[in-house]
Amino acid sequence: MAVNLARQLLNEGHAILALDDLSRGKRELLAEFDKHPRFTFQHIDCADSDAMASAVDDVGAQIDHVWHLAANSDIPAGLADPRIDRDRTFQTTFAVLEVMRRYAIPELHFASSSAIYGDLGDREIHEDIGPLLPISNYGAMKLASEAQIRAAVEAFLPRADIFRFPNVIGVPATHGVIVDFVRKLKATPDRLEVLGDGTQQKAYLHVDDLVNAMLHVSRLPGRHKVFNIGPKDVGVSVRKIAELVRDRVSPNANIVFGEGNRGWIGDVPRFRYSTQRLTDTGWAPKLSSIEAVSRAIDQIASEELRNWSRP
Amino acid sequence: MAVNLARQLLNEGHAILALDDLSRGKRELLAEFDKHPRFTFQHIDCADSDAMASAVDDVGAQIDHVWHLAANSDIPAGLADPRIDRDRTFQTTFAVLEVMRRYAIPELHFASSSAIYGDLGDREIHEDIGPLLPISNYGAMKLASEAQIRAAVEAFLPRADIFRFPNVIGVPATHGVIVDFVRKLKATPDRLEVLGDGTQQKAYLHVDDLVNAMLHVSRLPGRHKVFNIGPKDVGVSVRKIAELVRDRVSPNANIVFGEGNRGWIGDVPRFRYSTQRLTDTGWAPKLSSIEAVSRAIDQIASEELRNWSRP
Repeated sequence: MAVNLARQLLNEGHAILALDDLSRGKRELLAEFDKHPRFTFQHIDCADSDAMASAVDDVGAQIDHVWHLAANSDIPAGLADPRIDRDRTFQTTFAVLEVMRRYAIPELHFASSSAIYGDLGDREIHEDIGPLLPISNYGAMKLASEAQIRAAVEAFLPRADIFRFPNVIGVPATHGVIVDFVRKLKATPDRLEVLGDGTQQKAYLHVDDLVNAMLHVSRLPGRHKVFNIGPKDVGVSVRKIAELVRDRVSPNANIVFGEGNRGWIGDVPRFRYSTQRLTDTGWAPKLSSIEAVSRAIDQIASEELRNWSRP
Repeated sequence: MAVNLARQLLNEGHAILALDDLSRGKRELLAEFDKHPRFTFQHIDCADSDAMASAVDDVGAQIDHVWHLAANSDIPAGLADPRIDRDRTFQTTFAVLEVMRRYAIPELHFASSSAIYGDLGDREIHEDIGPLLPISNYGAMKLASEAQIRAAVEAFLPRADIFRFPNVIGVPATHGVIVDFVRKLKATPDRLEVLGDGTQQKAYLHVDDLVNAMLHVSRLPGRHKVFNIGPKDVGVSVRKIAELVRDRVSPNANIVFGEGNRGWIGDVPRFRYSTQRLTDTGWAPKLSSIEAVSRAIDQIASEELRNWSRP
């Protein structure tokens, strides 16, 4: 997402200071920007406000916007060790706010998550729903981040946007269900093991649509804007994704499902996601969940299979 | 609150390991328990899970319940330095959960706050309301704590209670509006300066009622219980409290009000607090807000003025 957003912001004429600890992203994904005159990268720990402040000092320019996308993205890892989400998902937000206060940076755009809602059963999830019952440490620490941002808006921060979105897919891809399936099939081309019974249904948003929506929201008026971002449909089942990946990568593979309709703790089996607030502002995604999945499978398979010869 | 709760739990026959950093509480408040055979105190930093684990090792008994009351209680201080609430209000919860997981302690009782709701205007605040818009770092970090507890219930914690309450008063009192007013009048007996215009209206709960309610909720069935606790009335104005303290401490003092109906950032001017869920279980407070305030003024003034001779 960071790469796609940076590309778009540079196209629009902005200058960028990009900060990343490269714990999940890869430096080579930024290679396309290396010679760009308005792009600077620093490899730092984004949970460390002093390191961020040094980076800001180094560029020596007034910064007007922060796009805060840093977080742990490995939800099961965060479940095994809650410190991962405390440090990478919450403390990054805390540090960003400290730096924004210190340098009087007026505008924050924050990539939150639909994981803050938790499992609300069949209720339609709109932005003002309650109660909020996150069921993963990742969702809990995204909610903690939102709360801290809200308090900052009350105290000193002139503007903040909160983007809540479900699963994002596309390229570059470092993780996620499609990458997992493609890699599993590379390892065992005759067999694809799936966590859960495959009935989990999720909404998927293509990264191009997400970046487009975030930029759209960032230009709307308002001091503290909170928006769900997602497709309009109710999603695609894991079974369907497994079949599409199988067809693309290894058509004769046998798909083996597990039991239960949760892949892991913290994984919400299905939900109804309202994006009415966003569509009321005139924005609509270009791709439905199934279209986003299909395009992402094609993009990811092309990358992952580039030098692969089927055994 | 900790002292009152400990007294009650000892009366019921429980053994207690009490942990406190004494940053706001005072050691001498625990003097009444010093010779009690079922009471152990350790002066440690409750944000440090290793220190807590050592204390648990030292007592060498299986622990069945954690009553987690530790937090920063100085909301304006937390506003000036957000690290105070991150470390004292959120990280204490995080550390408690680490220790509970490590020692398989099955039941958590958590003192949250009505500050997680923020300023919802005239809406009646029930437990399932949304959106949650905390306007202080204290409220934000209480919400973060609740979120982390919710995720823990999903992952490993068998039972957790969440208590959300507004202003608690009574003795022992280390801070709060009544203590402030009494001390101001001791310093300047002819004049009482009040932050804000005095129209702020708040619900007040006497600590005896709070402890009683928490124990009541802890005995109800349920894996993850969330309860508002408070009086049934809409509260008492700051003006009324100032007048009652003036009448008790220094009847001829002149009360001087400030401007605006917020005493400080993060202070919600008034709210309508629903305790329907709690009263539906058969519990009711013994004291209304004005009764709680009156009793607390009498208790606090008696303590604060014990050795004071009016100038």
